[in-house]
Amino acid sequence: MDKELKKITPSFKEISLKQSSFKSLYGLTPEVEQAIIHAINNKKKSGLKKLVEPLHPADQADMLERLSNENLNTFLDLLGKSLDPEVLVYLDQDIQENVIDHIGPIALARAIHDLDTDDAVDILQDLEEKDREVVIKQLPSSDRILVEEALSFPEQSAGRLMQREFLAFPSNWTVGQTIDHMRTKPLHEEETFYSIYIVDPAHRLLGVISLSKLLSTKRPVRLKDLMEKEPRSVTIETDQEEVALLFQQYGLVNMPVIDQLNRLLGVIVVDDIVDVINEEAQEDLLGLAGVSDFSIRASFIETAKGRFSWLILNMFTAILASSVIGLFQEEIEKLVALAVLMPIVASMGGNAGTQTVTVAVRALATRQLDYSNLQKFVLRETWVGMMNGVLFAFLSALIAYLWFGDKQIALVMALAMIANLFFAGILGTLIPLTLEKNNIDPAISSSVFLTTATDVIGFFTFLGLAAWIIL
Amino acid sequence: MDKELKKITPSFKEISLKQSSFKSLYGLTPEVEQAIIHAINNKKKSGLKKLVEPLHPADQADMLERLSNENLNTFLDLLGKSLDPEVLVYLDQDIQENVIDHIGPIALARAIHDLDTDDAVDILQDLEEKDREVVIKQLPSSDRILVEEALSFPEQSAGRLMQREFLAFPSNWTVGQTIDHMRTKPLHEEETFYSIYIVDPAHRLLGVISLSKLLSTKRPVRLKDLMEKEPRSVTIETDQEEVALLFQQYGLVNMPVIDQLNRLLGVIVVDDIVDVINEEAQEDLLGLAGVSDFSIRASFIETAKGRFSWLILNMFTAILASSVIGLFQEEIEKLVALAVLMPIVASMGGNAGTQTVTVAVRALATRQLDYSNLQKFVLRETWVGMMNGVLFAFLSALIAYLWFGDKQIALVMALAMIANLFFAGILGTLIPLTLEKNNIDPAISSSVFLTTATDVIGFFTFLGLAAWIIL
Repeated sequence: MDKELKKITPSFKEISLKQSSFKSLYGLTPEVEQAIIHAINNKKKSGLKKLVEPLHPADQADMLERLSNENLNTFLDLLGKSLDPEVLVYLDQDIQENVIDHIGPIALARAIHDLDTDDAVDILQDLEEKDREVVIKQLPSSDRILVEEALSFPEQSAGRLMQREFLAFPSNWTVGQTIDHMRTKPLHEEETFYSIYIVDPAHRLLGVISLSKLLSTKRPVRLKDLMEKEPRSVTIETDQEEVALLFQQYGLVNMPVIDQLNRLLGVIVVDDIVDVINEEAQEDLLGLAGVSDFSIRASFIETAKGRFSWLILNMFTAILASSVIGLFQEEIEKLVALAVLMPIVASMGGNAGTQTVTVAVRALATRQLDYSNLQKFVLRETWVGMMNGVLFAFLSALIAYLWFGDKQIALVMALAMIANLFFAGILGTLIPLTLEKNNIDPAISSSVFLTTATDVIGFFTFLGLAAWIIL
Repeated sequence: MDKELKKITPSFKEISLKQSSFKSLYGLTPEVEQAIIHAINNKKKSGLKKLVEPLHPADQADMLERLSNENLNTFLDLLGKSLDPEVLVYLDQDIQENVIDHIGPIALARAIHDLDTDDAVDILQDLEEKDREVVIKQLPSSDRILVEEALSFPEQSAGRLMQREFLAFPSNWTVGQTIDHMRTKPLHEEETFYSIYIVDPAHRLLGVISLSKLLSTKRPVRLKDLMEKEPRSVTIETDQEEVALLFQQYGLVNMPVIDQLNRLLGVIVVDDIVDVINEEAQEDLLGLAGVSDFSIRASFIETAKGRFSWLILNMFTAILASSVIGLFQEEIEKLVALAVLMPIVASMGGNAGTQTVTVAVRALATRQLDYSNLQKFVLRETWVGMMNGVLFAFLSALIAYLWFGDKQIALVMALAMIANLFFAGILGTLIPLTLEKNNIDPAISSSVFLTTATDVIGFFTFLGLAAWIIL
């Protein structure tokens, strides 16, 4: 491998932004990556295998995502059949599809059989219905029932997130009996548990015991005397965002999922919740900026398409704002300073409003904002808008006066600034709250409504006041 | 309590936005909250205690954060001394200070003694130095050494995040011996472990065994034959953001922290990492919108202050953009349609650029964008800008022509739109990448640079081309 590395070094140095300014955190170092690409180009199957196998499945997935389509296909030709099933779990959807097409339904069914139900369902739910049926038919019947049931739960629900593999014991068992039983059933390599659950004969959830508590307790103690009663649980329909909030609030590592009759169905584990938290935060971030897709790997056509709908929406709102300017063409002709100053009013309103919208969106997503502090929040943001409005009114009036030497223009500037920042504060809270109330995601649509409003109000008050006071 | 609830119901119904449109997820239901406020107002100490104590510390913290200052003080007078120390961990910094002032250093030292080191350090690091010293002096010497050492580690490092409480055993112990030893030391109620660590006599980290593996293995097996060798670890200096990325990449629940000599110093647990992931995502979200503070509870003066610096920065950039318009006053006077149409060009550039900036910021934060795919990414975004530029050039030209019936204006509009969206694509990638390279957080400063650029370029190309082609 060292020899191979030396060969790569020169071409690697050519990259303009220094490698050292970006850190490689994971197992997939630049050196390993280059060596893998080299092995693919030379179709060295055994060399490739030696490079790939020591990598964690998550790193292997990263690597596949970084390959060009051509290299990916060569890689799959060489190693597709011996790929670790866990790798599938970590792949982006588009690459996952590519890999699945390549290895075929029988190999996929075999791979899925080795996975936890939550991971199996995660892969199957993204397949086209036809392909999914083919794969499900290949599964052993015990797997098939669990997978089909999981797929019947709503998307993004606790039912989809949970794994069906968990440990449940009767309440009258002792610690010793439980441990002895666990020793008779060796774990799969990937399986890890953090708690055991106590159930009654009808499989209803009675309590939970953490493994550390189980291990620190003497053998004769009965589980019912050790367990934490009525543990926090969610039902299969609970939305994944709510599940994530509960994990965060109470610092949980796992949580039982029950049905309407309190029967234990499965367990959600924190690593899946970390993914959910990330997804939800990313959705809000991208939503506010109008990006519907986020694949670093998507082609430029796909990317351009994904951006287009937001831009066209913004174009119409920009035209709306411009048509407000259109109403005052005569005034601008008479006093061209108005055209120079008007974007300042609109831009300040947009920025102040975006600050408020962002705080509101985040506070709603983290449930910090609710019925009880709503009025206080709207009031605070209105006052903030008012106060900054007055400050920036003075400042912008001063600048307008120094620039154009006209007291009336300065006055109009000040008044328009107060009005626009005031409305920015009110609308910055009311728009996301109204959307939330109507079950529309405030992260996705608030900012376009807001900037339309602040542009229209900004231009209208500034030009309107100018027409009234000056001209 | 039921009686009290009935009294509250009418005033509760008056709230304009229906309660049902906001969900109460946690233990602190609206009913409990109202009953608590009622008990505070009536200074019913025992009634208050009965309401508060069954709540999880995280819910108690939420409750304190929701109280008015007056109610908070009454609450602390009544129950301050008997507050669960864990509550402190979950409090926002400003309320935490308030509570700490109220209970005094001796009670605080007692509370801190009951906490894990990571939580203790989390509280102490926010205290003023004088207060911190007073509290540290009150701690038993064993705690004091650990706490002082932890405070000597860099902020936001693995050293600050880790807890010093963990289980480490020699490699030649058997499973049976280990479990017997654990049984002799009963756990604190709050303590939970997920793994045990295997160390050599110099306390150097050799391996890790998950508790589920320990429990499923027969008693005579030696730890060295069971352990996973060379587990993933971080050093005390590792930045918390990197630690969080490792937890996410490998789906970890805990991770050992070592020093330069590979000695095991502590363990980071996933619940703290979930907080870090949230914090970092929130920082990026708020940073892009120019919000430096995010306390739903901050007074309107504090909030207005926090927003001011961003707005003043934006004011200067807006003035810069306006001064570009100022260069073309004669042209605007001759052809006022220019003033009407110019905001469309600037606004489209700003929106397209913000999309790109947001994707770049997120991709950098999640390490999906690095040296290896950098050129591809910049190229893709440039092409996306180009392609959408051409599309929106046609559209906006058509609209300009229909509006003002002037082919030359339509042509100028088209050319300016192409230029601005093209530069938005390039700058939307290069600005965050350059900031990242210079170790400036791209989330915090990218958007102001970007919108300045797209405004200036938008106005300049549109008005400049108009001056050149039409006039």
